[in-house]
Amino acid sequence: MNYSVFRCLTLISLPVFAASPRDEIASFNQKFRDATLQMDNAATMALWAEDGVTLLPGLAPIEGKKTIARWLDGVVAGLAGYRVTTQENDFHDIQISGDWASEWGATHQIVQPPDRKPVIETWGKILLVLHRDADGAWKIREEMWNAGVKPEPGR
Amino acid sequence: MNYSVFRCLTLISLPVFAASPRDEIASFNQKFRDATLQMDNAATMALWAEDGVTLLPGLAPIEGKKTIARWLDGVVAGLAGYRVTTQENDFHDIQISGDWASEWGATHQIVQPPDRKPVIETWGKILLVLHRDADGAWKIREEMWNAGVKPEPGR
Repeated sequence: MNYSVFRCLTLISLPVFAASPRDEIASFNQKFRDATLQMDNAATMALWAEDGVTLLPGLAPIEGKKTIARWLDGVVAGLAGYRVTTQENDFHDIQISGDWASEWGATHQIVQPPDRKPVIETWGKILLVLHRDADGAWKIREEMWNAGVKPEPGR
Repeated sequence: MNYSVFRCLTLISLPVFAASPRDEIASFNQKFRDATLQMDNAATMALWAEDGVTLLPGLAPIEGKKTIARWLDGVVAGLAGYRVTTQENDFHDIQISGDWASEWGATHQIVQPPDRKPVIETWGKILLVLHRDADGAWKIREEMWNAGVKPEPGR
């Protein structure tokens, strides 16, 4: 193969290497899951839009990235010795329209408290609205969660 | 004013009468609130997409308009004599991108049980993802709700 043909093939192939919006959301979902699993607040907050809002059960809306970061630091500070051992987010119906996207999912979390206390296992549901920021990255504009039910065996 | 001038003015004015997507969402929100206030299940279900999903606290996801309608009929059948006397949905951050839209809000509901029992007052939060259907109407694709807190006086 001479150089010019190789060059042509490279140019033709280039679009294959550009992530599709769907791939970008899949990558976002992986980061979102990993950040929770590792209780890495900086990594979690890197996924939030400046004007994001989280809507959590029994709380007033927490508005703005800085306010959410402060709240999250407080939560994790109160969980010294706790470890997230399982974090599964099974997202459905990913919809992308321009710079906006949405997806909902079933969540399953297992937390190991310190001193070999019994694990805390939680099933829930999540709904995310994402917005692509000026740098092209998908960020959380709205997050909502509530409790779900333990799936029946075989489902 | 001669006829041709009137005709020109009419043509120029026409776009004013076409609802903007933002007005359409406002109209959707009004219908959504009224249907809940009147406990009118048919009116509520007219606002749902065929493939809509509702994500309610403590329940598995309820998927599909027919399944949601059946569930809602069961809920209302169990509330004979109950009346919704207040339904306030204060929606924020309405975002529209093509045929998709999202909004979150604070909800406040007062329900009067039968036999002059004490009212049930609920503050909550809601997140909606809307999709414009083939007929151009906005329909609920995803709905999620969870409990909030009673606003402090003066807020």
